[in-house]
Amino acid sequence: MQHFISPTDVTDIHALIKQGLYVKANPFEDAHLGKNKTIGLIFFNSSLRTRLSTQKAAQNLGMNVMIMNVGQDSWGLEMEEMIEGHPVIMNGDKAEHVKEAAAVIGRYCDVIGIRAFAELKDRDKDYRELVMSQFRKYAGVPIVNLESATRHPLQSLADCITIAEAKAAYAMLARPKVVLTWLPHFKALPQAVANSFCEWMNPLANAGEIEFVVTHPPGYELAPEYLGNARVEYDQEKAFEGADFIYGKNWSSYTHYGQVLTQNPAWMVTMDKMQLTNNGKFMHCLPVRRNVKVSDDVLDSPQSLVIEQAANREWSAQAVLKEILLTL
Amino acid sequence: MQHFISPTDVTDIHALIKQGLYVKANPFEDAHLGKNKTIGLIFFNSSLRTRLSTQKAAQNLGMNVMIMNVGQDSWGLEMEEMIEGHPVIMNGDKAEHVKEAAAVIGRYCDVIGIRAFAELKDRDKDYRELVMSQFRKYAGVPIVNLESATRHPLQSLADCITIAEAKAAYAMLARPKVVLTWLPHFKALPQAVANSFCEWMNPLANAGEIEFVVTHPPGYELAPEYLGNARVEYDQEKAFEGADFIYGKNWSSYTHYGQVLTQNPAWMVTMDKMQLTNNGKFMHCLPVRRNVKVSDDVLDSPQSLVIEQAANREWSAQAVLKEILLTL
Amino acid sequence: MQHFISPTDVTDIHALIKQGLYVKANPFEDAHLGKNKTIGLIFFNSSLRTRLSTQKAAQNLGMNVMIMNVGQDSWGLEMEEMIEGHPVIMNGDKAEHVKEAAAVIGRYCDVIGIRAFAELKDRDKDYRELVMSQFRKYAGVPIVNLESATRHPLQSLADCITIAEAKAAYAMLARPKVVLTWLPHFKALPQAVANSFCEWMNPLANAGEIEFVVTHPPGYELAPEYLGNARVEYDQEKAFEGADFIYGKNWSSYTHYGQVLTQNPAWMVTMDKMQLTNNGKFMHCLPVRRNVKVSDDVLDSPQSLVIEQAANREWSAQAVLKEILLTL
Repeated sequence: MQHFISPTDVTDIHALIKQGLYVKANPFEDAHLGKNKTIGLIFFNSSLRTRLSTQKAAQNLGMNVMIMNVGQDSWGLEMEEMIEGHPVIMNGDKAEHVKEAAAVIGRYCDVIGIRAFAELKDRDKDYRELVMSQFRKYAGVPIVNLESATRHPLQSLADCITIAEAKAAYAMLARPKVVLTWLPHFKALPQAVANSFCEWMNPLANAGEIEFVVTHPPGYELAPEYLGNARVEYDQEKAFEGADFIYGKNWSSYTHYGQVLTQNPAWMVTMDKMQLTNNGKFMHCLPVRRNVKVSDDVLDSPQSLVIEQAANREWSAQAVLKEILLTL
Repeated sequence: MQHFISPTDVTDIHALIKQGLYVKANPFEDAHLGKNKTIGLIFFNSSLRTRLSTQKAAQNLGMNVMIMNVGQDSWGLEMEEMIEGHPVIMNGDKAEHVKEAAAVIGRYCDVIGIRAFAELKDRDKDYRELVMSQFRKYAGVPIVNLESATRHPLQSLADCITIAEAKAAYAMLARPKVVLTWLPHFKALPQAVANSFCEWMNPLANAGEIEFVVTHPPGYELAPEYLGNARVEYDQEKAFEGADFIYGKNWSSYTHYGQVLTQNPAWMVTMDKMQLTNNGKFMHCLPVRRNVKVSDDVLDSPQSLVIEQAANREWSAQAVLKEILLTL
Repeated sequence: MQHFISPTDVTDIHALIKQGLYVKANPFEDAHLGKNKTIGLIFFNSSLRTRLSTQKAAQNLGMNVMIMNVGQDSWGLEMEEMIEGHPVIMNGDKAEHVKEAAAVIGRYCDVIGIRAFAELKDRDKDYRELVMSQFRKYAGVPIVNLESATRHPLQSLADCITIAEAKAAYAMLARPKVVLTWLPHFKALPQAVANSFCEWMNPLANAGEIEFVVTHPPGYELAPEYLGNARVEYDQEKAFEGADFIYGKNWSSYTHYGQVLTQNPAWMVTMDKMQLTNNGKFMHCLPVRRNVKVSDDVLDSPQSLVIEQAANREWSAQAVLKEILLTL
């Protein structure tokens, strides 16, 4: 694997899921692969799971890890090259251009992981995925997406690993029903996790391995290029019927970009709603606000997979880094 | 050792002090113990000595170290489960519950160190030691206290090591007199270090190995459960008479919780006062404000043990982590 | 080498440049040297290249690295001992004195790297280089300057390595012309990089290995003790004539200390000006503000050495740390 920015960087999703399960069973087997190799983790935004799981995965592979919080350990970076047809004149608050920063970090690091959230102000800007594409263009080394404006593929791969594990553990039917449900929240959150989940579920659905349904209130339609041919069901209860996996997530509106159109508490996942499912498992990428998005009893029940799902972040990162190290 | 949160986690204080002196003499002997083991250091508050000494100790033992500053690298954590009899509804500024955060970090780390100071607003809340107990309950791995609301046991163990070393080095009497003295300061500081020092000195005093006296102005009485049967002497000069160790520390009032009742400069430790002692040694956990809490001449004299005491933080952390690794 | 704070700590500049080129060709050859050795990197100011390159160099040498951001991970440090003839009374916002902090960090670390910029308020204070001298005095271990108030020697050594490489790669004349030119900028920046560059170029110029010229607008004269016997040319175009290396940098006034006397855009380096040179190479320590200090076409041309120069920071740090480790 050259980069891990979007699913198009992955040649075989099934092989990568299998790699994740393999490194989970054999975490320290490849410690020689990363000898004298360094990963730089560049955070434009806060992180708990991604920070720790990626660092851990790299260390399992014998890599050195260097972490930098942009705007805190260092200064802001200018990402644009042209503005309204003219070269950017850097007389604002950004002290360095990504052209230099990416190229330089690429000289110190063998792999670079980058987290840069959507700003939720300008849809076109966010969906251009400027930070990822600029680092890809200028760093000269493999780039790993630690959550970008529109995607969170390390999360989605961990989700795939979690679903694969659960299918085996609970002897589920060959074609489980997976439901992505919007959850209420008072803050405007990016669409990245939801977009990404669709991007990773759609190929599995298209191959007949799962049934995939997305449910949300009107106005929360995801960008068509991410939603793909997923079925949308506006009635949450109907969507839940017979589901094997409920994947909860809040996101702000794509059509009314970045807006919170409703905080309707009726969309919170409760045990009552889980009763509608086929003894379904509950998934969420965390952090999750208890009793706002999901009730305590769901999260604390044996039906919740959220901790195992987070634990699998280590193995999705390790699978990706291993594949990258194998091509260096 | 399962956890290292309070002295009740320690079965044999003397053996642990001895372990500290042993690893100080043989720092790299146990580098195999931590192979493929990771400690996560979670800071809710700033740190210099604790941050560096614990990291160093873990590296001496061959462990990987991952550091996270909560509220800076990541977001705030909700610690409470119930408020006034109702489940917490997470619609405030805390994005994640400790139930998830602790469980997830526990999946990435073999040991977790946590620093979370007292807020000094609500005495009951601070003395419930919620952060430590929640991580202990939900992380599923050993927890090391890097200073909590009411305790700083890694400091106290380093203090014990320092006293043991000094007894040997200076051929002191078998039962030296140890005095904990309150020092003036304009800021409200937690009682953690003073509480903890009492908790670790009392067993030694009860075993007849030291004489232990606490001195402070009226209103600065420590919580009874920490003070134990230590003797309180309100006259600082009287307390200093014949002392072998003067342990200085400021703390805010426990009875008038979190308040600064006096900044009386007469309580500062000066060379004049040290003359009252039995050529006593001066100790302080650092940081110390020079010429506010202690005069330059005391800190710069050969009677000061503060640097050696801080250096011993490495060995107290290493002794604790070694004991924990031995039980993993 | 005992310390690496200023050029006076270096016995043989040529040998050190050679060491830099050697470790660049053999980065992992000395991994045994740093076994069980720890470097502490203490940042009073932000950093990207210095943070990453020094960390990387230390890891190449097998060292452990501990990083601390002062005022963020920990609290502010008091550097002064006396104020107006009286001992400092620490009743302000600095919680710890460098006397303790340096001594304690020196007990945890085998080498300490420190970054502490000029404040640009009080020239005498900045030029006393208090932070470096206090750490040198109290830490008890080798100190490496990661950019101080008046110097940036790791940068200058990387610059020397870059020039030596370019001389070989481009078959330059034996005595290339090196020009340090002031660049316009709206912010007040320290003189450290310019000072340091002079300090490292002057010995080479005096030995007849290069011709060295400094050009800047009136009022931007560097401190005499750093400028040395370098030739100053106030006409930038004249200075550029026949130059083999153009080294760009902004700095604020030394004579009108810390002030921005002009932002004259005519001093920006453009391709037109580069035509005046002998097919000269462009150098800059980065970060650089595009189209404020230098135009895009210069930075993006093959004449720009800025990325290679930044990459050489790893090897200047590794050369220095190797020399220090050899004396431990």
